[in-house]
Amino acid sequence: MADKNRILIVGGVAGGASCAARARRLCEHCEIVMFDRGPFVSFANCGLPYHVGDVIEEEAKLLIATPKLFRERFDIDVHTETEVTAIHREARQIEVRDLRNGEVRRESYDALVLSPGAGAIRPPLPGIDLPGIHVVRTIPDTRRIREALTGASRALVVGGGFIGLEMAENLAHRGLEVTLVELAPQVMPPLDPEMAAYVADHLVNHGVRLQLGAGVEGFEARDGGGLQVRVSNGERIDADLVILAIGVRPETALAQQAGLDLGEAGGIRVDDHMRTNDPRIWAVGDAIEVRDIVTGAERPLALAGPANRQGRVAAASIHHALGSEPPGARREAIRFRGVQGTAVCGVFELTVAMTGASERTLTRAGISYERVYLHPGNHVGYYPGSKPIHMKLLFAPDDGRILGAQAVGEADVARRIDVIAMALQMGGTVFDLEESELCYAPQYGAAKDPVNLAGMIAANHVRGDLSLADWNALSEGDALIVDVRTPAEFARGHIPGASNVPLEELRGRLDELPKERPVWLVCAVGQRAYYANRALLQHGFDVRILSGGMQTYATFARETD
Amino acid sequence: MADKNRILIVGGVAGGASCAARARRLCEHCEIVMFDRGPFVSFANCGLPYHVGDVIEEEAKLLIATPKLFRERFDIDVHTETEVTAIHREARQIEVRDLRNGEVRRESYDALVLSPGAGAIRPPLPGIDLPGIHVVRTIPDTRRIREALTGASRALVVGGGFIGLEMAENLAHRGLEVTLVELAPQVMPPLDPEMAAYVADHLVNHGVRLQLGAGVEGFEARDGGGLQVRVSNGERIDADLVILAIGVRPETALAQQAGLDLGEAGGIRVDDHMRTNDPRIWAVGDAIEVRDIVTGAERPLALAGPANRQGRVAAASIHHALGSEPPGARREAIRFRGVQGTAVCGVFELTVAMTGASERTLTRAGISYERVYLHPGNHVGYYPGSKPIHMKLLFAPDDGRILGAQAVGEADVARRIDVIAMALQMGGTVFDLEESELCYAPQYGAAKDPVNLAGMIAANHVRGDLSLADWNALSEGDALIVDVRTPAEFARGHIPGASNVPLEELRGRLDELPKERPVWLVCAVGQRAYYANRALLQHGFDVRILSGGMQTYATFARETD
Repeated sequence: MADKNRILIVGGVAGGASCAARARRLCEHCEIVMFDRGPFVSFANCGLPYHVGDVIEEEAKLLIATPKLFRERFDIDVHTETEVTAIHREARQIEVRDLRNGEVRRESYDALVLSPGAGAIRPPLPGIDLPGIHVVRTIPDTRRIREALTGASRALVVGGGFIGLEMAENLAHRGLEVTLVELAPQVMPPLDPEMAAYVADHLVNHGVRLQLGAGVEGFEARDGGGLQVRVSNGERIDADLVILAIGVRPETALAQQAGLDLGEAGGIRVDDHMRTNDPRIWAVGDAIEVRDIVTGAERPLALAGPANRQGRVAAASIHHALGSEPPGARREAIRFRGVQGTAVCGVFELTVAMTGASERTLTRAGISYERVYLHPGNHVGYYPGSKPIHMKLLFAPDDGRILGAQAVGEADVARRIDVIAMALQMGGTVFDLEESELCYAPQYGAAKDPVNLAGMIAANHVRGDLSLADWNALSEGDALIVDVRTPAEFARGHIPGASNVPLEELRGRLDELPKERPVWLVCAVGQRAYYANRALLQHGFDVRILSGGMQTYATFARETD
Repeated sequence: MADKNRILIVGGVAGGASCAARARRLCEHCEIVMFDRGPFVSFANCGLPYHVGDVIEEEAKLLIATPKLFRERFDIDVHTETEVTAIHREARQIEVRDLRNGEVRRESYDALVLSPGAGAIRPPLPGIDLPGIHVVRTIPDTRRIREALTGASRALVVGGGFIGLEMAENLAHRGLEVTLVELAPQVMPPLDPEMAAYVADHLVNHGVRLQLGAGVEGFEARDGGGLQVRVSNGERIDADLVILAIGVRPETALAQQAGLDLGEAGGIRVDDHMRTNDPRIWAVGDAIEVRDIVTGAERPLALAGPANRQGRVAAASIHHALGSEPPGARREAIRFRGVQGTAVCGVFELTVAMTGASERTLTRAGISYERVYLHPGNHVGYYPGSKPIHMKLLFAPDDGRILGAQAVGEADVARRIDVIAMALQMGGTVFDLEESELCYAPQYGAAKDPVNLAGMIAANHVRGDLSLADWNALSEGDALIVDVRTPAEFARGHIPGASNVPLEELRGRLDELPKERPVWLVCAVGQRAYYANRALLQHGFDVRILSGGMQTYATFARETD
């Protein structure tokens, strides 16, 4: 293959921009051209909500790389406001339209990279096209929203996922009264509901009005301005502006028109080199389907980190395919490993983070799992300012393989999820978490870090040292619930029907406990119940613990309110 | 083996206390007795410097578990102020002396656990026993230091390791003028010197007077109170109190007297079940030698996290050995995996963290390595408040195995080291770091997290995409140093002899660069140099980059000041 291979890239954000820059690094002699429908490339779309909230004051800060920088630094041509309207695969050409003057032309390629992204879903509801209804995907979107904020006092956010929550927070920062409507009975659907309950509480405490399990049915213009929104629970909510954040849909029109394979979940299908079924066409980013390393399922996942890495993988694969590898490289083909759904979201002062699969996802995939809950401090309690981290770890009951983790708290939450994410990616088990050697000094953690603790509790279960009761079965069966906290703690609130036998008295009161029915142990966070569990097990009782204790009970109780 | 096995534990902090509690959880019917020479067990020795600094105001907070709690919660007898003076291995007895009344008695064991810890080193210097010279190992130590603070205005800290730095900070908090004397030419010897330079700068900026490469030669009492300290650099320093923090030495007298094997580095020798050469005796914590998983070396390592896990391993091994495993357990023998030296230290607002081996350690072990430097923000720059993290990653040049990492910065430093620590423990490579999927939202990180970036840069090297110049050879050889920053940046300071060819002009000025001699590229942090490196490599130049750019240059320049 001769020099001057021509690489065309459709879409200049995240995956596309990464691919272009990497392609140049790998091949100084190729011609690289990037097209984007919008006026900007390589902008920080994850920052858009914070620009609306004036946390990021200058729009210019969101422009990570301009066409000028691509030209000067990377010798890459960028055509903005240029739409790619068709792919002629046999001719290896694309058809592009300059949106500023309507001119159409063809461009030839040796390799074509599709990075068209995903578009915000706008459901066909009555009134959906009324002014005042916004999505948050581009810089022009945020310009419109920021203009709409002048004089606005009430906002409605539709959708309680990441963008919805970030918008709710940022609109509240701007002084608006915010109502959030979410069709699911919980916020943040990637979390399991009892973990999402912490987030919902926090939103309400910060003045956000929540309408869960409610869908928007339509919009009407109000006399004198603004909108009235009809909600499925019968409410009619007045709002000066509406943010639609109910999800995104892969932009696959171009791929579909060109006859490229799509996956069952509606994204472009690629192999682990990001190559489509056309050997000259690669695809990356929000428009493609990626393999989930926990469940094996293929699905689109709109995350910036994987998109960037996919861009790098595609660039490497292109150079391998075009035979333009630089001299001296001992390159193995880099392969995209798949995704695990690591994500984090700030909600006022709360951090919510997760990696791997949720219970819902595991159930859907038919993967058996066990779960433990814990509520350690972000650092030792004796150092001032410790904040609890509410954690949930999901793992395979037989071999302890890590399947997923979720955490909510005010400090050092992302850190613990990041460590578990790293272990999960490497096929790690709860035994690996148990034995991990992590940073410890009093203001930074604990000799048994929250990650160690999560691993220890789960490993205890896998080794058979403790049996887990099922929180969801609390009201079923004939188990006696024994609360091993102090009488004072018990008096401040307990599970209905529970008996109180403080851990300190347990060994002297064994004869009060039944051997003919199961005993389920509970304490504040799970530690004393575990101690009691060990003692009772060895005395022949049929005993299980309610993982996470009353702290976890409270979330289940809230969730089923 | 019958019930009522008797487990005796010598030393009730960290490893010993963990072992005792775990032994009870595994065996409800065993008799467990713990002895400690001091007045307290299970106290938070890592918190002692912060109690001196009044950050932790109440001493009681440092008492994690009292003898009463051990008795009531775990049915464990604790004898404080009781010294174990001899082990009679054949009789399976220990000799103990009650320090309150001098009474001596014998106690029988089925299993004996030694957790005597390590004692602060007090070198035999002239005047070492004068009043006013303190160590920081126990609660009585901190009581004495807190008393000595009344009316004190000048403190001398001897030793620039973790405890020395924490003491310097806390004494400064208390309003004292602090001088720190360290024999090595750097603070924090587990760090490599150029990374330690950040810490030294920070200490000086916070008013700590540093005397590096200087040893204390003796102490004299001053007329009117206080001490005068004679230092090897000729200085005489007046101090109202002196803190000795020059390291610890494993407490092995008891083991040695009993004929247990010691290792070459002076700690008690154990197998990976924490068993000594006597099958009835186990040992854990600061007194033992542990295997370094990077270098394979056996050495004592005084860290609380490993001590706690060793306690758990010893308890499991004891139960396996005594045949007292509980019914229903499907226990595999838990094995201690060794240590990797993960550690963190706060120095005023700076966090210093590390895992794995340093260059010094690798060199001593004869392990070949390569190093990269980077200076990413703790989160994206467009979100306000980003703070740089200065990172160094050490890895095997052939297969990319992670060997060590060091990081210094004001925010999220421990998080990145923890992730790398997890990967290192699992035998991970720089390719694993490159592909890790970590938490990203603008206020939490970057689509390419600092950990990804470190992995990418190192992986680029292993794949042959970039060659690394050796900072230590900067003044040798005939390389032309080409600085690819802007002229304005270059004018503000550059490496002597460097030429300035801005990246943006590079492709048009190739004929200015020599092909007959090496070109070493430098920029601000390494990114632009890498871009330039890729272009020049493909144009046939002999090119390398100075990893970490001018930011790293500054640390080498400081270090050799």
